[in-house]
Amino acid sequence: MNQEFELSLLNDFYEFTMSNGFYNENKGERIVYFDVFFRRVPDKGGYAICCGLDQIIDYISNLSYSEENVEFLRQKKLFSDGFLDYLRNFKFSCDVYAVPEGTPVFPGEPILTVRGPAIQAQLLETMILLTLNHQSLIATKASRIVRAADGRGVSEFGARRAHGTAASVMGARAAYIAGCTGTSNVLCDKLYGVPCNGTMAHSWVQSFDSEYEAFEAYARNYPQSCVLLIDTFNVLKSGLPNAIKCFDNVLKPQGCRPVAVRIDSGDITYLSKKIRAVLDAAGYPDCKIMVSNSLDEYIIRDCINQGAKIDLFGVGERLITSRSESVFGGVYKLVAVEDEEGNIIPKIKISENIEKITTPCFKQLYRFFSKETGMAIADLITLHEEVIDESKPYTLFDPVHTWKEKVVNDYVATPLLKPIFLGGKLVYEKPQTIEIRSYCLEQLSLLWDEVKRFENPHEYYVDYSQKLWDIKHQLLKKH
Amino acid sequence: MNQEFELSLLNDFYEFTMSNGFYNENKGERIVYFDVFFRRVPDKGGYAICCGLDQIIDYISNLSYSEENVEFLRQKKLFSDGFLDYLRNFKFSCDVYAVPEGTPVFPGEPILTVRGPAIQAQLLETMILLTLNHQSLIATKASRIVRAADGRGVSEFGARRAHGTAASVMGARAAYIAGCTGTSNVLCDKLYGVPCNGTMAHSWVQSFDSEYEAFEAYARNYPQSCVLLIDTFNVLKSGLPNAIKCFDNVLKPQGCRPVAVRIDSGDITYLSKKIRAVLDAAGYPDCKIMVSNSLDEYIIRDCINQGAKIDLFGVGERLITSRSESVFGGVYKLVAVEDEEGNIIPKIKISENIEKITTPCFKQLYRFFSKETGMAIADLITLHEEVIDESKPYTLFDPVHTWKEKVVNDYVATPLLKPIFLGGKLVYEKPQTIEIRSYCLEQLSLLWDEVKRFENPHEYYVDYSQKLWDIKHQLLKKH
Repeated sequence: MNQEFELSLLNDFYEFTMSNGFYNENKGERIVYFDVFFRRVPDKGGYAICCGLDQIIDYISNLSYSEENVEFLRQKKLFSDGFLDYLRNFKFSCDVYAVPEGTPVFPGEPILTVRGPAIQAQLLETMILLTLNHQSLIATKASRIVRAADGRGVSEFGARRAHGTAASVMGARAAYIAGCTGTSNVLCDKLYGVPCNGTMAHSWVQSFDSEYEAFEAYARNYPQSCVLLIDTFNVLKSGLPNAIKCFDNVLKPQGCRPVAVRIDSGDITYLSKKIRAVLDAAGYPDCKIMVSNSLDEYIIRDCINQGAKIDLFGVGERLITSRSESVFGGVYKLVAVEDEEGNIIPKIKISENIEKITTPCFKQLYRFFSKETGMAIADLITLHEEVIDESKPYTLFDPVHTWKEKVVNDYVATPLLKPIFLGGKLVYEKPQTIEIRSYCLEQLSLLWDEVKRFENPHEYYVDYSQKLWDIKHQLLKKH
Repeated sequence: MNQEFELSLLNDFYEFTMSNGFYNENKGERIVYFDVFFRRVPDKGGYAICCGLDQIIDYISNLSYSEENVEFLRQKKLFSDGFLDYLRNFKFSCDVYAVPEGTPVFPGEPILTVRGPAIQAQLLETMILLTLNHQSLIATKASRIVRAADGRGVSEFGARRAHGTAASVMGARAAYIAGCTGTSNVLCDKLYGVPCNGTMAHSWVQSFDSEYEAFEAYARNYPQSCVLLIDTFNVLKSGLPNAIKCFDNVLKPQGCRPVAVRIDSGDITYLSKKIRAVLDAAGYPDCKIMVSNSLDEYIIRDCINQGAKIDLFGVGERLITSRSESVFGGVYKLVAVEDEEGNIIPKIKISENIEKITTPCFKQLYRFFSKETGMAIADLITLHEEVIDESKPYTLFDPVHTWKEKVVNDYVATPLLKPIFLGGKLVYEKPQTIEIRSYCLEQLSLLWDEVKRFENPHEYYVDYSQKLWDIKHQLLKKH
């Protein structure tokens, strides 16, 4: 892979053919509104974690079209000179609104909105979707896995099974935001401050004349952070006794304590109980037990239910590829255009697949929290300029079954879509990764457990304001 | 994402702790052998397509550790000054052997071998696995999808659902190698010459006052390559009649023919038949029908079985993430070390999971082709220096059920592991992507259909030479 990955051409070809068409039809400068939303939570879960905004900001901030890239497009013999000049002199001028990274989000909600010239808004589609879809997918999966571990540490170990270089680094970042405690990925530590860790592979053990010699050498090199992999030959007959002998002979004389033993195969529940008993009896009750080997939230929950004595989980391929469901289906849809006087004209996309029908208008997304419990009650999608008067009761209603109403009192209504770029200028202060993680875990704690369970989660309320509902239904009737 | 992705730290942390340990224990320069192999074909398929060598060559060729990265490691306070100096002055000196990209490969086969100083061989593990696993996964999936399309074109459309930037580009490349005809990804075209294509999104249609005006504008801009998306409102009542009117009014007067109409929703089999009849009756029997919308090999096969009139498939998320199975489980295992006299000492990893037991020794992989049919008969794993005398019959036997023997005559035995780097020098001429694609499709044509079917494929023979079998079983008995 090229070390310099030129992202301005990382785009679906049709973004260029459409933008060129807009330019040639004198529609390039027309102001349009695009929303990103998704239709379904992966794994039939109750919520998703929005992630990737940081990289979208980097992408947009650096977006330009080099002479070499313009020339590449020119050779396709499809683009007008005027359009190619536009790219050469590209100057980003859109507004972008987005929910902060780490926010729990729900199907149908606008999680990012672009307002700007059609030619520009179109060119952003592919990278915005690619970034949000990938990182939200991994953050959502990691959140499930961390929840299954129920307070035990989960470290992301998946680099070798990730879908390429960027997936390994950005996936590790997303996993950390959603609650993992660290990663094996050194580059993710360097770029995003996600603590990296790791110890030894089977090859270390095999490289020595005996397992004991391998352990001894490792403990000698890393007395303060000694984690031994004890399943190269036989966990209970060889690995564990050798580990204890090594702790006794190498660590104890230096006053060091072992950190953990790790197993990567076999019946991890059974073995963990046996290992725990032996370690305790040998005077190492503080030595943790770490396991890995194709783990996910279901296996982890099962192990814990069966009384496994596991302190740390190393989770690889099933997290970094979200194996049970490897697609996060965010889409980028036109929801409004402005006429020449600046009036906003809502747009809708009808489809024979009901779920593919879009929600028109320039919108805002509010989250209602109960003042009494602090917990999230419902989300409300409104026109962008609507203001919620928190001093008055608010009547929420289901946008499909409209007779299902709920009057809420004593609430805080927080707008979730924040301005990120205005007129092309970055107006958002990017938080540190660790701050995003804290925010994510805090926001998750404000969702009721019913929304977070794996099986048949409660469907969190996502309602429309009366004004938005009216516009959408007028447009639906019209078509 | 940083545009400059510094790959030398894209590594599991334990590669550094182990390499540092080897260095400190004076084992860093010891010559070791690592094999890459995989244990199972995704989707219960009969073969996988090996892919990614090109990027591994790029990675290794550019591998160095900058002062900044060495300093980053130093701050971990775990690494010796000698080891950090080694990284500073890193000079690659390993031998690397690999099967060419595009080769069909089978479980248990060595597809890449590294021979070199332990410290270096260890540092390569993560990136070699990440690269081969990702690209082989996508190539293998694409090969299935292309086969299901049975001669119809398949274009890769998945960038927006790919797992990050690299996955979108490298996945598109892998898909092309395995038989896709193109991609929506412009960067993949620029970097690897994979033809990019694409037309319009629903937003194009919505941006005009009417569907017809949108079509007319598109046809005016792209009369030679006019593909219209006809499902924004209603395919049969609106999209198709508008498309035909546009072909008549805009293309016909210029003497241009439409390329295709595309649908992205609805019952694509039913609609394609209706569309075909209407297009034919309107004088456009040459106008192709393209479909997209969460396709994979099973849906495509089903459509074709039901008589769908589809000429082109645009395949997105289920290809670019290999959704049905998003993990390719290649592993990197120590198989031998050299003693001080240069004798090769085979190494094995035992496991309570039988499938995790490794095959020791420095090896070669032969593919036997029948001279009579030209077809592949079986693969044979041998010691690296073994030579097959093609003038004599060869007795193949099953490595588990050893009484199952087969004597082959009149064959060609082709060694598949080629030298890529020798003594750190690149000795392999990288083929063009299009050449890799031709090679892949040719090699696939030499596998019997029984090996390639989706359900219960015939298990292709992967046997051991007697010498290799003897060594493995001696080691197994010893442990």
